[in-house]
Amino acid sequence: MSGNTTGKVFKVTTFGSSHGVALGAVIDGCPAGIDLSEDDIQRELDKRRPGTSQVTTSRGETDQAQILSGVFQGKTDGTPIAAVVKNREFNSSAYEALKNTPRPGHGDFTWKSKYLNYDYRGGGRGSGRVTIGHVIGGAVAKKILDQLGIKVVSHVTQIGNIKANTVNINQIESKIKENPVRCADPKAAKEMEELILKVKSKGDSIGGIVETVALNAPVGLGEPVFDKLDADLAKAMMGIGAVKGVEIGAGFKVAELTGYGTNDEYYVTADGKIKTTTNQAGGILGGISNGMPIVVRIAVKPTPSISQAQKTVDLEEMKEAEIEIEGRHDPCICPRITAVAEASMAMVLADHLLRGGFIPPSTVEKLE
Amino acid sequence: MSGNTTGKVFKVTTFGSSHGVALGAVIDGCPAGIDLSEDDIQRELDKRRPGTSQVTTSRGETDQAQILSGVFQGKTDGTPIAAVVKNREFNSSAYEALKNTPRPGHGDFTWKSKYLNYDYRGGGRGSGRVTIGHVIGGAVAKKILDQLGIKVVSHVTQIGNIKANTVNINQIESKIKENPVRCADPKAAKEMEELILKVKSKGDSIGGIVETVALNAPVGLGEPVFDKLDADLAKAMMGIGAVKGVEIGAGFKVAELTGYGTNDEYYVTADGKIKTTTNQAGGILGGISNGMPIVVRIAVKPTPSISQAQKTVDLEEMKEAEIEIEGRHDPCICPRITAVAEASMAMVLADHLLRGGFIPPSTVEKLE
Amino acid sequence: MSGNTTGKVFKVTTFGSSHGVALGAVIDGCPAGIDLSEDDIQRELDKRRPGTSQVTTSRGETDQAQILSGVFQGKTDGTPIAAVVKNREFNSSAYEALKNTPRPGHGDFTWKSKYLNYDYRGGGRGSGRVTIGHVIGGAVAKKILDQLGIKVVSHVTQIGNIKANTVNINQIESKIKENPVRCADPKAAKEMEELILKVKSKGDSIGGIVETVALNAPVGLGEPVFDKLDADLAKAMMGIGAVKGVEIGAGFKVAELTGYGTNDEYYVTADGKIKTTTNQAGGILGGISNGMPIVVRIAVKPTPSISQAQKTVDLEEMKEAEIEIEGRHDPCICPRITAVAEASMAMVLADHLLRGGFIPPSTVEKLE
Amino acid sequence: MSGNTTGKVFKVTTFGSSHGVALGAVIDGCPAGIDLSEDDIQRELDKRRPGTSQVTTSRGETDQAQILSGVFQGKTDGTPIAAVVKNREFNSSAYEALKNTPRPGHGDFTWKSKYLNYDYRGGGRGSGRVTIGHVIGGAVAKKILDQLGIKVVSHVTQIGNIKANTVNINQIESKIKENPVRCADPKAAKEMEELILKVKSKGDSIGGIVETVALNAPVGLGEPVFDKLDADLAKAMMGIGAVKGVEIGAGFKVAELTGYGTNDEYYVTADGKIKTTTNQAGGILGGISNGMPIVVRIAVKPTPSISQAQKTVDLEEMKEAEIEIEGRHDPCICPRITAVAEASMAMVLADHLLRGGFIPPSTVEKLE
Repeated sequence: MSGNTTGKVFKVTTFGSSHGVALGAVIDGCPAGIDLSEDDIQRELDKRRPGTSQVTTSRGETDQAQILSGVFQGKTDGTPIAAVVKNREFNSSAYEALKNTPRPGHGDFTWKSKYLNYDYRGGGRGSGRVTIGHVIGGAVAKKILDQLGIKVVSHVTQIGNIKANTVNINQIESKIKENPVRCADPKAAKEMEELILKVKSKGDSIGGIVETVALNAPVGLGEPVFDKLDADLAKAMMGIGAVKGVEIGAGFKVAELTGYGTNDEYYVTADGKIKTTTNQAGGILGGISNGMPIVVRIAVKPTPSISQAQKTVDLEEMKEAEIEIEGRHDPCICPRITAVAEASMAMVLADHLLRGGFIPPSTVEKLE
Repeated sequence: MSGNTTGKVFKVTTFGSSHGVALGAVIDGCPAGIDLSEDDIQRELDKRRPGTSQVTTSRGETDQAQILSGVFQGKTDGTPIAAVVKNREFNSSAYEALKNTPRPGHGDFTWKSKYLNYDYRGGGRGSGRVTIGHVIGGAVAKKILDQLGIKVVSHVTQIGNIKANTVNINQIESKIKENPVRCADPKAAKEMEELILKVKSKGDSIGGIVETVALNAPVGLGEPVFDKLDADLAKAMMGIGAVKGVEIGAGFKVAELTGYGTNDEYYVTADGKIKTTTNQAGGILGGISNGMPIVVRIAVKPTPSISQAQKTVDLEEMKEAEIEIEGRHDPCICPRITAVAEASMAMVLADHLLRGGFIPPSTVEKLE
Repeated sequence: MSGNTTGKVFKVTTFGSSHGVALGAVIDGCPAGIDLSEDDIQRELDKRRPGTSQVTTSRGETDQAQILSGVFQGKTDGTPIAAVVKNREFNSSAYEALKNTPRPGHGDFTWKSKYLNYDYRGGGRGSGRVTIGHVIGGAVAKKILDQLGIKVVSHVTQIGNIKANTVNINQIESKIKENPVRCADPKAAKEMEELILKVKSKGDSIGGIVETVALNAPVGLGEPVFDKLDADLAKAMMGIGAVKGVEIGAGFKVAELTGYGTNDEYYVTADGKIKTTTNQAGGILGGISNGMPIVVRIAVKPTPSISQAQKTVDLEEMKEAEIEIEGRHDPCICPRITAVAEASMAMVLADHLLRGGFIPPSTVEKLE
Repeated sequence: MSGNTTGKVFKVTTFGSSHGVALGAVIDGCPAGIDLSEDDIQRELDKRRPGTSQVTTSRGETDQAQILSGVFQGKTDGTPIAAVVKNREFNSSAYEALKNTPRPGHGDFTWKSKYLNYDYRGGGRGSGRVTIGHVIGGAVAKKILDQLGIKVVSHVTQIGNIKANTVNINQIESKIKENPVRCADPKAAKEMEELILKVKSKGDSIGGIVETVALNAPVGLGEPVFDKLDADLAKAMMGIGAVKGVEIGAGFKVAELTGYGTNDEYYVTADGKIKTTTNQAGGILGGISNGMPIVVRIAVKPTPSISQAQKTVDLEEMKEAEIEIEGRHDPCICPRITAVAEASMAMVLADHLLRGGFIPPSTVEKLE
């Protein structure tokens, strides 16, 4: 059954696989009149592009976006926006050897079991390259968020056992540009970089945590009881490959807290807005945004493509086998996954903005 | 906009609020020919019923389910199944005092901001009573899972800083019946109970962690790239009130692991099935179930209704205020939330089963 | 698979069957703040109630609506509105004889083939009683349309070979109240009544045409290319039991027209609006409303329940059989189907209004 | 809001406009393992291609389909199938003159009013070229129908006042290839061709009726009460540009029929199937297919682009104006619309097949 569309009003359908002809997305439900160019998409794609430092894979992927429809005279026209990235000619020969021996930690076994005719080259549609579609969708979503001054930014807060110190939420965006791991704490960033290079030298990989925040989100986003904002964010984030956990605000720490230590108390700001003194809720209460920063963290597993020998099964002969994965892979996917996490949150927020009903409602009018 | 339906093939729409006339659910997409009685629903509702021990609220809620449609001669007939639970006459007067002073940690402020005409009595549709609809949907879902021998069970693994020891996954269901906290480790259960009573005596509350597992789930559930099984589970779980985090398999621990320590290696069982030696993946790879137990944990915040004085804002006068919440509330929601977590996972699994495409496909036929 | 929900933003899910416990609807996506009472629903239900004249069935059905949720202090509160109508105790014995011999023209054969466990009593969920759910949904939709001054009205324009003369579109609503066939042309109404009584006396039934118009619909409703307003109206209308054809504006007459005779030319009204001199388009161009009255006609087949002997098949013994249908049935369903056609158009219009993007957009704001 | 996707399981999302970069479709939900090539799509596209005879426009459109994703080693792989047709360089200058003066009978006025930033070149996304997306979706749908031996074919049954005689339903497909109007009655075809050339010589256009039939459709397609098969067919057909009416089986004739003359009586065939002696129902009863041929007719309006002077309004200056439309347009769209009607029915049938639950269920298994 179909499962390649996300969103209910701002709907993004993606297509394409690692070594196929092209990858892309169709965005249906973007209001007319929004400025949009190929540069807007390219800027976001470049954030997830590998080969920009030693902490990511050295594979060269020069992904160029082309808009096929939905933009007229520099602005969206209310019709579906299709954008594609052509795949260059990949050498798929390395994957021939793996086609009957599923790589541990990858989706090879489950995809092949489910679809039988599985494009095993580069992981097919289970590949990380598929997030090009997410990023295209997120780039358009961000143009909508821009109209309301909403900003979405992701940063790495932990790699292995190295944890970043908290940074002022407004400085994250500028700080992460200063290092290749996209960590806002320069000291931790340096240590993270060293750790990644160390595991890389052993042919291994390492996990981490990525935090995504939305600033200036209005009160009122979210549709209880099933399409709560936190529920939709959790789905979007958990659906990113390699993510094994999602938490919002205080997250898993709430297990050890008492009610008094968890509840955020209210106060009135000088300009008459209602805010909370703390933000344990991560900007969402009762499934609806409360006007505080929206804070989501994801647990990212170490890249499963490692060069060490691993036990698997030969699916043709149904007997145990051993594989060694060659090629150049990310020793830590966290820095690049930030682009995908931003895109994923942006798509959810744009979708909920366009569902309407938030405060101030006057701004909806501008969008439609 | 509408957000009260979950699922794409097995669709559950819920309605009702804490102090309204009735709560209920309409299940559309349940195959015809499944045995279903009011007892099947009541059995699940009784699990979430309060007042059964000192660790839950002493409010008496004798929720009786009535099936209005969709069952003919003891079996589903392929038409929508509507079931309702009438609310008894509640005394809503205690909530009058709170109607302009949103309770910290509750959805009062966000719901009132979004909808203006907010039923503040008992938290309205933001109340935990709304999960009666979830449980009805889950009860029907479980009847479908039964047909394939799939079992879903939730248990409490942590309350405050007390963590349960791991228990054999097949013994969880029987073990949790032995104590009021639904913890499968008897020693931890005792300590948890004491901790809950201690915070209760202070008018405070405490958080915890609830794990939900599915046994005998087939290979092939999940529809990448957006309707991955883990993504849909994350949405369902995060959408439960009080949940602030969701993790699958190794979860947040992956942040500190390396690839070699995270990947689950494959082997062939004596009866020719492919399994993994470990289950760090929690039964899902590439967004599709791999035939291992599905393991999901949620972080549950302490009940926000506490009797200590809290700072809030008077929304009429737009000035700061202080409230004290009266009434009988759960000092720890974890034991009762297990019923809701089971229901939530069951609905997701039933929905994905009915989307088809899993292994062995022969069983789908029986369902339709 | 599920198919009992209509609409994308204003979503109506219905349930219940002819002889079950209850019939009803859940409306999700109705904005908060709309006045709504049980009387608003009852008024519409009374329009489809039989037994009010000799041209409809003499079965007594005193369908009383009860609202279970979604209304707080007399206004909608943004949560799902559930409303039910309890079935009285029906005598189902007459249907026992028919349970293996499908009635020609009814859905017995197809429903039983598809679902196997088919509630054959009174046609089960294939019964006309199921439109109680439509009418509940339509009653709520009309409250939304009221806010913008949009009026939906259905009238009978043909019964058998008797065709009504055209009546001023603004007078239809008052005229149809003057006769039991709901025809706005009094002379034709009289002849229609006589014709219906004549076929009734023979134990037969007769078909007809029902026209539904929407007045004051704004420009801009409809979402090309698949959710065009005319496409959604066609689906809603063709989905009503007994309907075999749907046409909009000039409808099937366009087959014989030339372009010059079909195109509606534009002009500017005194108050600066753009209108067309004719309305061959029936208010919709390119799938989007153009501000002219929306005009839809449906072809309604004669009630298949007739007292003459008919050939069928005994499904148990797989041999041919003959049946005679007893009971009191509508000799012509057209007068009563007007209530359902109104409800169906109202639901489509409300859904498209809430999708936003129409002119003037300022009015959307009031709704949310 | 989004409206460019059709189907619930077999989902087709289309994009692109008349003079943009490209047009195309993404098909999500096609089962894996179906043979699919660009030739399969091209064959269907060629049916709607203009310039093949004097009765269609002489514009040269050599639309070549390219598959971007979803096919691996000649078969679908269960991932989304994206296919595009590049637009050649069009000369849009003729449309500059019309950009503020909406063409009567076209969507210019409603599209421009709704979206403001309207791509007026060639009618933008309101153009007939947009049905390229429909035809791509239909081509893939037909490959699924092929697996079950289901055949869909459209033919012209009326142009102006010339009506074709009924032809044996199994001969339609071969007969329509013998003449440019795609009418299965050779004598009527000749007269239709003459009529079209006559109106063309006057710079006018003419309407007609197109019938689409499905042979070998199984019993059990359709999901009452809102996703009935006839309801979904009506939506799909009415959504095709220029269609103003849809009827099924006896269609509008039922208005003049009695129950006894409308009901189709059942009998058992020699090979033990249940059929009806007549097919007034057009293959659908109670919203579910009954195993008889599915028969749908659409009323197609004359092409609104005519060379005669027409009154319109200048939207900039808000005053009345007169336009004459230049260029080469179809004097009758019926012959070419057959390709789109076939595609539209094929998509609906494929979607309902994949929803499951039809008879014989054994065949579903092959598809998944």
